Amino acid sequence: MNALNIAEYMQTLGLQARVASAQMARASAAAKNRALKGLARLLRENVAALQADNARDLERAVAAGLAAPMVDRLKLTPKVLDTCAQGCEQLAAMPDIIGEIIGMKQQPSGIRVGQMRVPIGVFGMIFESRPNVTIEAASLSIKSGNACILRGGSEAIESNKALALLVRQALAEAGLPEDAVQLVQTTDREAVGQLITMPQYVDVVIPRGGKGLIERISREAKVPVIKHLDGNCHVYVDDPCDIDMAVTVADNAKTQKYSPCNASESLLVARGVAQAFLSKIGAIYAAKGVEMRGDDAAVQILRSQAAINSVATVVPASEQDWSEEYLAPIISIKVVEGLDEAIAHINRYGSHHTDAILTRDHMHAQRFLREVDSASVMVNASTRFADGFEYGLGAEIGISTDKFHARGPVGLEGLTSLKWVVLGQGEVRL
Amino acid sequence: MNALNIAEYMQTLGLQARVASAQMARASAAAKNRALKGLARLLRENVAALQADNARDLERAVAAGLAAPMVDRLKLTPKVLDTCAQGCEQLAAMPDIIGEIIGMKQQPSGIRVGQMRVPIGVFGMIFESRPNVTIEAASLSIKSGNACILRGGSEAIESNKALALLVRQALAEAGLPEDAVQLVQTTDREAVGQLITMPQYVDVVIPRGGKGLIERISREAKVPVIKHLDGNCHVYVDDPCDIDMAVTVADNAKTQKYSPCNASESLLVARGVAQAFLSKIGAIYAAKGVEMRGDDAAVQILRSQAAINSVATVVPASEQDWSEEYLAPIISIKVVEGLDEAIAHINRYGSHHTDAILTRDHMHAQRFLREVDSASVMVNASTRFADGFEYGLGAEIGISTDKFHARGPVGLEGLTSLKWVVLGQGEVRL
Repeated sequence: MNALNIAEYMQTLGLQARVASAQMARASAAAKNRALKGLARLLRENVAALQADNARDLERAVAAGLAAPMVDRLKLTPKVLDTCAQGCEQLAAMPDIIGEIIGMKQQPSGIRVGQMRVPIGVFGMIFESRPNVTIEAASLSIKSGNACILRGGSEAIESNKALALLVRQALAEAGLPEDAVQLVQTTDREAVGQLITMPQYVDVVIPRGGKGLIERISREAKVPVIKHLDGNCHVYVDDPCDIDMAVTVADNAKTQKYSPCNASESLLVARGVAQAFLSKIGAIYAAKGVEMRGDDAAVQILRSQAAINSVATVVPASEQDWSEEYLAPIISIKVVEGLDEAIAHINRYGSHHTDAILTRDHMHAQRFLREVDSASVMVNASTRFADGFEYGLGAEIGISTDKFHARGPVGLEGLTSLKWVVLGQGEVRL
Repeated sequence: MNALNIAEYMQTLGLQARVASAQMARASAAAKNRALKGLARLLRENVAALQADNARDLERAVAAGLAAPMVDRLKLTPKVLDTCAQGCEQLAAMPDIIGEIIGMKQQPSGIRVGQMRVPIGVFGMIFESRPNVTIEAASLSIKSGNACILRGGSEAIESNKALALLVRQALAEAGLPEDAVQLVQTTDREAVGQLITMPQYVDVVIPRGGKGLIERISREAKVPVIKHLDGNCHVYVDDPCDIDMAVTVADNAKTQKYSPCNASESLLVARGVAQAFLSKIGAIYAAKGVEMRGDDAAVQILRSQAAINSVATVVPASEQDWSEEYLAPIISIKVVEGLDEAIAHINRYGSHHTDAILTRDHMHAQRFLREVDSASVMVNASTRFADGFEYGLGAEIGISTDKFHARGPVGLEGLTSLKWVVLGQGEVRL
């Protein structure tokens, strides 16, 4: 397709999505759940066929010399497909939030006023590599009564096409419009440019992928974007605190997994507990091969411990380190005077994602919760908990680092809006 | 100032606003209310001085040949200033929503998760003519714990400067940062261009004014915009309905005031009640000089009534009429087969602002509420109720015709966001 054809093609998808979204908005919970359960069944019934389509993507990926971990992420194993099917069934079992009415109150004029939760309309999802995101996005879209346009990575196009066909079949079998979930069939980049600049058809765009992709989309989009940028998460070890608990949590926040955005990248320690805390956590990090980049005070404490110094890399941190999202076994460490400096440091260098205080002091906990300007603020818990499932949302659309509309882990509610409902008995305005 | 200086100037305002917003976010309810009550007092104490500054704007407006109603809107009379002062006092009396924690629930891991309401940060308000908007915006900003940058119309610059000085005095006297409310001191249009493209300093922009201004800002903004475009509001008279009640409400919705965005512009009537309803409402509209633009069926009924036909303008509606926001004594009228056609017509031609059904049928009422895709949907009430005060919000930041973040009348909550709060006892992720 040339650019003109792509524009036309995307407009067609947009119009079809808009039409389907009106039907989805009034679909019954039963029909939506039927589609989700049907999709789960189809995924389980078609494992062999899906793996055959997936094999063509894998061959191409290997031929193109893609790194092994990237090829792995492309794979539709029976286990991956079963997880997708389970996800659909879990969504089907969740209560339907569409149509709920909240806060209905009578006003002095006599009218009763409340708000009804309704689907946002049409969303676009742009993602890379992993084809199971096709099923995740489709199922979230069905459950929330929206229509969606999905644009996956070119490396997974055959897998995505096969999965999208099953979604359409499940929709049709449930009596819902097939166009409620549409996959962009071209891998031309121009299609993304179109998708993010059709406010008449697309109400919100959710990019999932590298920072470069997300920044480009945010810059060029003419529709709202639920975007997730950096996760430079902090753990602040306060004075007073329970040192053993602090060590357990700070260890988990850094080392339970290195790659997630909610893993902690920076450790702040109150001077009063620095010696006791750093000697313990330093030994653990050293044993796990975590490189420590500290300010002068931290480096001095860490290097003074033979058990740490002999096996670990302890180096002075540069100014840049305080802003860094390593996603690796590296952590920056700073000794601070206390709460005020910790809050100021986090608000200055952090990415407003997730930050935790480990403390016994109630007033400090309250101030930290209120004054740290992050999507998730925690007391005595690991930053690794910043996640839609851990928060009890039942599903996660994405994580937002913005303040507008949705902040932090976004559940199904992020794909809805509230409209005002007014019930009267013939009241008029005076 | 030249363009370069303006860019620098606006960046300075932005940085100052960002710094002040952190202080405002942690300000106590008592300090914010002290500032609001202080501002009310200062407004009352400085009536003469404010009128002297206002007179300079008025003189310039008259010399420039501004129309009398425009000059009127510029006037800071003692009554206008007292209304502003009362508004500040009412806000001071309202509960503080900042810091409230909602939905705190324990999760299977043991952590408790909820959401805390916090200020959104910095907002920009762009408005025309009426200088009292300076006080409205400043007081809303103070109450909601935000900082704001205000850009008023050039015709009111002297009045706005004088009012903004009082706001700064009130902030300082309450121990709050003066830069929490800043007025752009230049009338150069380039300042607006800067204000709406500084996402690092401005979290949301709220334009108030004509459609041209709002469209331009939406097109060029690099930050979210709470925008209010058209209000093509419908009243649908269903079958069955209480004809007398329907006549009372349809009359009020159109004629109580012609200029507000929530006045109805289009009347849909179910065929079964068309004869009975149109002959009554037609006589009222005719008596009030409302021009009626109908489809064939409506025109036929209206013209068949001598009492209407002799005094009123009854003309066939063009296709364009169904989309028109008249803001004038004109109404389009269409006879429809019933609920389905009414809903389809509203969703196609309406502006998704406010639409009402007048009915006795419970199922029809439920379907109308759910399926009409508008910010406000009403049963048996006048569209004129679509208003923050009538909805019990206590204050109105603006009205949003978007679905993202805020929809319909926006209260103080529209200037806040919810961050996640996690309370643990040393829990870690497994």
